[in-house]
Amino acid sequence: MMGQERSEEKSECVSLSPMREAVPAPPECERVCVFGTGDLGRSLGLRLLQAGYGVVFGSRRPHSSSLLLHGAQVLGHAAAAQSALLIFIAVQREHYDFLVPLANQLKGKVLVDVSNNLRKNQYPEANAEYLQSLVPGAEVVKGFNTLSAWSLQNGPSDANRQVYICGDSVEAKQVVMAVATKLGLSALDQGSLSVARELEDFPLQLFPQWRLPLRIAIGLSAAFFFYLLIRDIIYAYATQGEDISFRIMVSLANQVCPIVSLIMLSLCYLPGVLASFLQLYRGTKYRRFPNWLDSWMLCRKQLGLLSLGFAFLHVLYTLILPIRYYLMFWVTEHTVSLIRENKTTTFDTTTAWRGDSYLSLGILGFGLYVLLGITSLPSVSNVLSWREFSFVQSKLGHLTLLLCTAHTYLYGWNRFLSSSIYKWYTPPGYMLCLVLPSVVLLLKLLLITPCVDRTITRIRQGWERGADQRNPKDSQPLIP
Amino acid sequence: MMGQERSEEKSECVSLSPMREAVPAPPECERVCVFGTGDLGRSLGLRLLQAGYGVVFGSRRPHSSSLLLHGAQVLGHAAAAQSALLIFIAVQREHYDFLVPLANQLKGKVLVDVSNNLRKNQYPEANAEYLQSLVPGAEVVKGFNTLSAWSLQNGPSDANRQVYICGDSVEAKQVVMAVATKLGLSALDQGSLSVARELEDFPLQLFPQWRLPLRIAIGLSAAFFFYLLIRDIIYAYATQGEDISFRIMVSLANQVCPIVSLIMLSLCYLPGVLASFLQLYRGTKYRRFPNWLDSWMLCRKQLGLLSLGFAFLHVLYTLILPIRYYLMFWVTEHTVSLIRENKTTTFDTTTAWRGDSYLSLGILGFGLYVLLGITSLPSVSNVLSWREFSFVQSKLGHLTLLLCTAHTYLYGWNRFLSSSIYKWYTPPGYMLCLVLPSVVLLLKLLLITPCVDRTITRIRQGWERGADQRNPKDSQPLIP
Amino acid sequence: MMGQERSEEKSECVSLSPMREAVPAPPECERVCVFGTGDLGRSLGLRLLQAGYGVVFGSRRPHSSSLLLHGAQVLGHAAAAQSALLIFIAVQREHYDFLVPLANQLKGKVLVDVSNNLRKNQYPEANAEYLQSLVPGAEVVKGFNTLSAWSLQNGPSDANRQVYICGDSVEAKQVVMAVATKLGLSALDQGSLSVARELEDFPLQLFPQWRLPLRIAIGLSAAFFFYLLIRDIIYAYATQGEDISFRIMVSLANQVCPIVSLIMLSLCYLPGVLASFLQLYRGTKYRRFPNWLDSWMLCRKQLGLLSLGFAFLHVLYTLILPIRYYLMFWVTEHTVSLIRENKTTTFDTTTAWRGDSYLSLGILGFGLYVLLGITSLPSVSNVLSWREFSFVQSKLGHLTLLLCTAHTYLYGWNRFLSSSIYKWYTPPGYMLCLVLPSVVLLLKLLLITPCVDRTITRIRQGWERGADQRNPKDSQPLIP
Repeated sequence: MMGQERSEEKSECVSLSPMREAVPAPPECERVCVFGTGDLGRSLGLRLLQAGYGVVFGSRRPHSSSLLLHGAQVLGHAAAAQSALLIFIAVQREHYDFLVPLANQLKGKVLVDVSNNLRKNQYPEANAEYLQSLVPGAEVVKGFNTLSAWSLQNGPSDANRQVYICGDSVEAKQVVMAVATKLGLSALDQGSLSVARELEDFPLQLFPQWRLPLRIAIGLSAAFFFYLLIRDIIYAYATQGEDISFRIMVSLANQVCPIVSLIMLSLCYLPGVLASFLQLYRGTKYRRFPNWLDSWMLCRKQLGLLSLGFAFLHVLYTLILPIRYYLMFWVTEHTVSLIRENKTTTFDTTTAWRGDSYLSLGILGFGLYVLLGITSLPSVSNVLSWREFSFVQSKLGHLTLLLCTAHTYLYGWNRFLSSSIYKWYTPPGYMLCLVLPSVVLLLKLLLITPCVDRTITRIRQGWERGADQRNPKDSQPLIP
Repeated sequence: MMGQERSEEKSECVSLSPMREAVPAPPECERVCVFGTGDLGRSLGLRLLQAGYGVVFGSRRPHSSSLLLHGAQVLGHAAAAQSALLIFIAVQREHYDFLVPLANQLKGKVLVDVSNNLRKNQYPEANAEYLQSLVPGAEVVKGFNTLSAWSLQNGPSDANRQVYICGDSVEAKQVVMAVATKLGLSALDQGSLSVARELEDFPLQLFPQWRLPLRIAIGLSAAFFFYLLIRDIIYAYATQGEDISFRIMVSLANQVCPIVSLIMLSLCYLPGVLASFLQLYRGTKYRRFPNWLDSWMLCRKQLGLLSLGFAFLHVLYTLILPIRYYLMFWVTEHTVSLIRENKTTTFDTTTAWRGDSYLSLGILGFGLYVLLGITSLPSVSNVLSWREFSFVQSKLGHLTLLLCTAHTYLYGWNRFLSSSIYKWYTPPGYMLCLVLPSVVLLLKLLLITPCVDRTITRIRQGWERGADQRNPKDSQPLIP
Repeated sequence: MMGQERSEEKSECVSLSPMREAVPAPPECERVCVFGTGDLGRSLGLRLLQAGYGVVFGSRRPHSSSLLLHGAQVLGHAAAAQSALLIFIAVQREHYDFLVPLANQLKGKVLVDVSNNLRKNQYPEANAEYLQSLVPGAEVVKGFNTLSAWSLQNGPSDANRQVYICGDSVEAKQVVMAVATKLGLSALDQGSLSVARELEDFPLQLFPQWRLPLRIAIGLSAAFFFYLLIRDIIYAYATQGEDISFRIMVSLANQVCPIVSLIMLSLCYLPGVLASFLQLYRGTKYRRFPNWLDSWMLCRKQLGLLSLGFAFLHVLYTLILPIRYYLMFWVTEHTVSLIRENKTTTFDTTTAWRGDSYLSLGILGFGLYVLLGITSLPSVSNVLSWREFSFVQSKLGHLTLLLCTAHTYLYGWNRFLSSSIYKWYTPPGYMLCLVLPSVVLLLKLLLITPCVDRTITRIRQGWERGADQRNPKDSQPLIP
């Protein structure tokens, strides 16, 4: 829905106006060649035509390709190759060998490899590197493959404006960059052709880092949903015959959300704490963590952001409480019964203190939460130095966990001891979700005691327990 | 207000300290030349001086320019050109011809064209290309024109830190990039000089893509405001003589906002659905859409973001309902009347279910809405692969529309059939706003039925109805 | 917590898989050399090994360095230098002179200077420039220094993915860029080696621009907290013996937040207004502002964002009011007393108008506030042209200030005149916080009156009062 960027304006001005306003193509109109008349080739050609380029298609049977784009020329491969400096190779890798006999015509040309594969590691080397090996006299540039044919054809309106390119020739990349800019894209140079494989792997991903955290979130939500369903709704029905199933939509949701949020926030900080203890135990930082800990640490950001999402829902669910029919009914009933039974109520300062502290801690915790979320936006974390980022994410992050845990403890207050809440001998949800954050905070507390902290700091600066003294020149930490 | 970036720290350290702390200029201080002593020239000179550069102004009458910057030198054009490798050309394009006689002195120099035009397509070629044609022996780099004189003078505090440059010589661009970094800017290379026109067009825009969506939003808001004003406030006054005009500020606003939001959200998804049907009807994807559909599709992001803005206001207006004097008064009155008239109320589970579902759907819809908004931030959509972006914006986007439409249906509930709500024979606002989203959802439902979906998918992969079979090598889709 | 970026996926696929899945290193595996076996050197080596590179350490005593990484080779400096094209120099600057005797082996090699200093201006020239002067035959590239050893070792999971590099040789930078991409980083070229100092200064900063605004925020919050504590809580206790200390948590917080927010918002717009008056008084824009005004203008963004933070907390504190025990108790009490004392209440339309307007202005003000915050995100302000940015931040910014000030005036309403609110002869907090925004708005109003506005505009276009007419060619403004 909302993915278009500044570039449309450009694409509109630059590319569409020539057609719309029937302005004649500029006399010195640059010519670009496209090999391949399939989907991607035609989309590319259309887009290039719109941007004011002359387009020449290279085809094996130039005369049978009558259905091609209006305004484009179709030539045989050899003739097409000679007609332009820049040639887009929009055929599949398996057919690249048809380029070998064209070696003479391709000498000195800039070949743009726009291909993608169906899965990672499909071939031993990157498509672009294979192309370069087939036509050593040409300058191969990898690029544009992160765009879909769809978005290439329609302008970068629904997808990324930023494209990555790589190649061994700086001059060839300059040529490709200029074309990209004219198409309304911004090409970022990623270095030599040896990184083509990384660029080819990128479009294949579908939230790889989000899968584990999403599964955890869904699993936790489902587990707590059924747990609370049984404890609250079914229990009320079984023991008192009361139908309070309407509570599922708001009350139950507003219990599941904060529980899952708090657990995921502690799951986000637990691996860091475990890693510190592991380093402390091993006495060195130079041994790899076990794989499970590695994978866990690599999805901390995703755990944190999902946790923020649940916290956001919890805030909304809490704020709409007063406009629920249920609460309004209950408040009126309460007042009416006070009058009818002629009871008086007294204001309890302790309850007021507890309730207000509970709300205030929640608000401050959520405020910090949002701050953590904002600093994890790519553009914000890019302008932070490492010291700044680490200050925000580590110091403020643990403070957030502390505030949210205290918020939950205040919610429970003295009900922990009352036996009436242990329906069917099960503890309420908020009690279960307090276990993990309490453990994380306790372990963190241990880590920041002066003596443990000193050892950890030395280990992180490269010190190793029991290591023979290495070359003192080299062993000094370079980063303060 | 909030537009300053990391760069100020830099600009402060790098540029201001020499002046403030009276540190002597570095001995090997680089010299930069500025042609033009007008506004932009002087601003540039000031900024360069602050960054520690030696600045030489080139002027036609060097001796009369006594008012120039303290610390800068003023020389004749020829002498100035010889004094530095890098020369900023800060004069208007009409006067560029004074550079022609200086061809000898400018040979091998790097000329930075910082000029802008008053409107698009003012001249047949870009200013920078014109400059290059006048002084073919120099290396022209286009850049810095996206900054205002104001922000050039004051550091990039109130505007962008990122600047785009282009030029045919890689070495010349390196020199300009280094100066940009020292001035606290980050220059992104956009390729050869042929893209100078795109860079020159950029600063002229003032939200070109936002104009149509903004006009739609304002038009819809005004229309529904007056419609509801007549139906609610004026109707009450005309028929019962009641003055409920105070409702304008919150109640009316809280009806207009969700109505406009839902209509704009469906306007954001309607063109995509129409485009699919058009492709289905034509049996090919290789014919351009009509211009109106093209323009519509290009402003979907803006429609969506404005819709999110209205939804945000709707959420805030809803959440403050319980602290309104009106609601508090009404609740008290209701309770008092219950007592005085000795009525009893019974809890209605259906009402509770309906109300809670209504609120819950709204919350979930808004949560997804915010997610869509976040993924449309440029820095977030840049790190998404095309598959990921399309999953979020298309799948989750239609789910959002579904949730919000269901939320509105639940708001209406069984009141649709009651005739009492058709004041003056007009339907209430929420009923009107349901038409468009219902149509969009129905059409989308049609599109995702297996048989239609299969055809659409084939068309998008390049298949054409009735097309003669083209070269099978080329016609295979390259992108899965 | 949430700082990981797309790169992990890469880092996982690219770098970790060789180890995990025991895939043999590619035959044509590139070799990279690392000088320095300290913390940073070993972290770099580990990361390079994971990315599939062959790693050779250069050490003074290659045979005693037995503890080095599994899979890496250790050679003497000369032998190591000859084994690879790319050499990371991970030793401290003081020891760079050991490279001088290796000049022959280092000829034509790419040396990457990854060093950092302990403080700014520690040395007369940048470390990388010093390195280049010691080994003139090699190509020095500065880079990677913005990453910590910690994040280098663990992949860019907890910190920035974007790294800056600079150097005089384009080819050398290409090589370094390719390595960066393989390590899961995105290297941005910043130009020639002369900007190395700027890159070296970056990691040393810890929110330099945020210190003053944060101090102002903390100072204002503390001052108003104690002022209101005395006026409300202690006054009630001293004069009526009432304990209303529970109000600290929510009521007091909800007074301090909006007060500090409004004051900081006006502090964010005051310097711009002052600067305009100073330019008006001086009759020129070419004289520097006093230092205090300069520093103030440079932290406007931070002032605005902190102000938004306080406004956000104010919104949350306001929205939870109805679920506070205090309010619920009070509403019930009020209803009960109405019944018991048999009083009737009448609906006051004026109160309803005032209250609803107060809420509505607050909502619209907050909506604009959030919009200002979003446009100050680096990635959003980067896609705005200067005209657009200035429109949003200046026009909409002052409108936000106007709405929020009006919101506060409506809160006060006619209570300004009642003497009962001046407890202990002190004015309430909202009255104090209205002074500054009112002054700023008045001054701004003066500035936009046609005659003053005309003069300001001419001054900003470079006109100077009393200046002799300069070369008319140069004095014309280049930017419209």
